[in-house]
Amino acid sequence: MASTLTLTAEHKCFGGAQRHYTHRSTVLNCDMRFAVYLPPAALEGTPVPVLYWLSGLTCTDENFTQKAGAQRVAAELGLAVVAPDTSPRGDAVPDDDNYDLGKGAGFYINATKAPWNEHYRMYDYVLDELPALVTDNLPVTGNCAIAGHSMGGHGALVLALRNPERFRSVSAFSPICHPARCPWGEKAFTAYLGDNPQLWESYDAVLLMKATDAKIPALIDQGTDDDFLDNQLHTDSLSEAVEATGFPADIRYQEGYDHSYFFIATFIEDHLRFHHRHLVSDSALGG
Amino acid sequence: MASTLTLTAEHKCFGGAQRHYTHRSTVLNCDMRFAVYLPPAALEGTPVPVLYWLSGLTCTDENFTQKAGAQRVAAELGLAVVAPDTSPRGDAVPDDDNYDLGKGAGFYINATKAPWNEHYRMYDYVLDELPALVTDNLPVTGNCAIAGHSMGGHGALVLALRNPERFRSVSAFSPICHPARCPWGEKAFTAYLGDNPQLWESYDAVLLMKATDAKIPALIDQGTDDDFLDNQLHTDSLSEAVEATGFPADIRYQEGYDHSYFFIATFIEDHLRFHHRHLVSDSALGG
Repeated sequence: MASTLTLTAEHKCFGGAQRHYTHRSTVLNCDMRFAVYLPPAALEGTPVPVLYWLSGLTCTDENFTQKAGAQRVAAELGLAVVAPDTSPRGDAVPDDDNYDLGKGAGFYINATKAPWNEHYRMYDYVLDELPALVTDNLPVTGNCAIAGHSMGGHGALVLALRNPERFRSVSAFSPICHPARCPWGEKAFTAYLGDNPQLWESYDAVLLMKATDAKIPALIDQGTDDDFLDNQLHTDSLSEAVEATGFPADIRYQEGYDHSYFFIATFIEDHLRFHHRHLVSDSALGG
Repeated sequence: MASTLTLTAEHKCFGGAQRHYTHRSTVLNCDMRFAVYLPPAALEGTPVPVLYWLSGLTCTDENFTQKAGAQRVAAELGLAVVAPDTSPRGDAVPDDDNYDLGKGAGFYINATKAPWNEHYRMYDYVLDELPALVTDNLPVTGNCAIAGHSMGGHGALVLALRNPERFRSVSAFSPICHPARCPWGEKAFTAYLGDNPQLWESYDAVLLMKATDAKIPALIDQGTDDDFLDNQLHTDSLSEAVEATGFPADIRYQEGYDHSYFFIATFIEDHLRFHHRHLVSDSALGG
């Protein structure tokens, strides 16, 4: 049963409401916070579809909310945007001294190894517990899409590829496409999952795409001046998987853009309009 | 003579460049940083007009740059936007334990009292030294406008009222309209200026407006749910001054909005288009 939400802040923004909530997470075994933008239509009583946004390493629920400038177009289109935190939080939650493991680095997976497995279950949290809370407590429809940045782009692609019936569309900025084969992913997967190739594959977008017949409309933006492109993101491997499988993904290389929120702000409107088209259509691509 | 600029960061954003510079400030007697957004037109060789943005208490050059979402419309209109820091900085600069005095709280005035007067000369910095640096080093025209938020709204109004020949237009979000008569202003003016009524008047928008014949187009947005409205901002006093003097100011009360950047993001497009109209016209209102 979903727990209750506590509203901690609300700001009027483009006629809608930028809200911050806290709640007890059963899945993560700690208190959590998330941000949600409700467009004017939702406040006026019309349930709206939801875009879930997954943030990158070191982020909280606030980065996207403050820096992406998404509220303007979300207000116009009538889209709710939910931004969860990037890991479990609190003094009881194990952590690591580095930015790429532990708090702020949940990688949207269910950890199986101690000491992480008591709290780090962000896959289940984002797929099940958070949407149940949102649906039970806020004026939204059942139609969902998912997007994210970097580690969150990885999370969005993995969640969509494994649950195509749940998301009408997926998009990502600068996603970690192939975490089973990059330093960030190898470190996190080793800590959280141990030496288990099947589990690693289940959280790797490139490997999942090659293994599934599921199709879901996808939009990916990648800056050509991104410092992490060559070593961490492996967009080329995702392009190969898209080509090999006929997956309906549009991968766009954006000349001169980097890994920052200035890049996201520039193209977030395209992503919101992309998701909106699929969220309001009568059926999903494969339906 | 203007010192040189050191580029510390650059991010492509809406086809233009969000840059951060550091430089030695002679006026402030310390190293300073500022942010500037250059629209695509400027990068392609066409000098563009400049909007100076002054931020509020506790802010740096980053808040507006990251949170206001101004780059989209600045890119479209061909406007450069310069955001200075809100006070002198560095270990040698005196400070106070509270957020509303010392670092982050320069109030855009020239301090006359020790220990503040060796560094806290933000009025001269924003009026003279910074524009000289910008004009000497970046592809901009001589046409300027000025805007700001809260303490920065006070700064923008004061600078424009005292220098109508320098700015084509002025705008503010939630400005401290009457600092000589509110707790924030009384505290800062007492510390920085001492007991000197003439100096206080020279930095108070309400008093300046009543004392000048100068006219400059002004746009002011004030949220009705702003926690500081009753005690600190005194927008009603500015409205009375506008009415008494026929000053060409449009003061808009925005229902339900607060003091945050979510409010600024909602209406920044209006402000940029307002300034652009005056920046590209053949003459200033009184010309």
